[in-house]
Amino acid sequence: MKLLIIQVGKTADEYLKEGIGIYTKRIANYLELEVETVKPSLKKDKLIAIQEEEKSILSKIKQGDFLVVLDEKGEELGSRQLAVKIQKWMERGVGRIVFIIGGAFGISPELKKRTDFIFSVSKLTFTHQMVRLILVEQIYRSMTILRNEGYHHD
Amino acid sequence: MKLLIIQVGKTADEYLKEGIGIYTKRIANYLELEVETVKPSLKKDKLIAIQEEEKSILSKIKQGDFLVVLDEKGEELGSRQLAVKIQKWMERGVGRIVFIIGGAFGISPELKKRTDFIFSVSKLTFTHQMVRLILVEQIYRSMTILRNEGYHHD
Repeated sequence: MKLLIIQVGKTADEYLKEGIGIYTKRIANYLELEVETVKPSLKKDKLIAIQEEEKSILSKIKQGDFLVVLDEKGEELGSRQLAVKIQKWMERGVGRIVFIIGGAFGISPELKKRTDFIFSVSKLTFTHQMVRLILVEQIYRSMTILRNEGYHHD
Repeated sequence: MKLLIIQVGKTADEYLKEGIGIYTKRIANYLELEVETVKPSLKKDKLIAIQEEEKSILSKIKQGDFLVVLDEKGEELGSRQLAVKIQKWMERGVGRIVFIIGGAFGISPELKKRTDFIFSVSKLTFTHQMVRLILVEQIYRSMTILRNEGYHHD
């Protein structure tokens, strides 16, 4: 099982980089995790910018990838539910789970249609950079839940 | 208007300290924010530990404080809804809004009963240390929403 996170733009804040690095290293004990960063569009028009960024995102995706797009309007899950979902996807023989975190203006309806699961981490709006930290912490948490390792408390 | 955040135990991770510091400074441009850290209980028994920690938490609270407890089982809000709530509490003439972030084992039913609002930042479980970062970012975001400052995108 492999995981890929695709994000738009480098992580600018040093503190987030550090936190993300901590969880990325921990996840590597369980499965292979890659992070791909695509360039943010410089276009002023929001729709054109999203389209341009999605073209770059889609260029990173292979056939057979299972796409999980992070979006506020998606489905919310508890941490245990997320772990169970990840396990199911793994059991289904999915080659790679790809988590996509859009840029500041989100993701187009077209990309949403192509995704297998739209995942909302919260009703609250977070910066798309902070979402990266939340995502890797949750992936790590899922791994510990699936292995019954006591990191997670209900 | 004053804000107080009460948390159990110091923030251990340097990267979270840094992120929290960034938002704490930004919030200070809008209102007075204090952070009180109470000692985590050393008791092994979960219920006794929670009781001990809550005694310390309650010692920081004054009459007339408006208590917001962060708890996964609380009410979820979008960022705009949170901003509107904060505004309403401020208009009600509340002297101080106190946000309480419990320790690893959460908060007792007794303290929950005494609170004015139970706020869930997500269905996901985060570390109680990471919740501190999420909270200050959301308070800052609320301030910018209330002043129409363009930090927040819907």
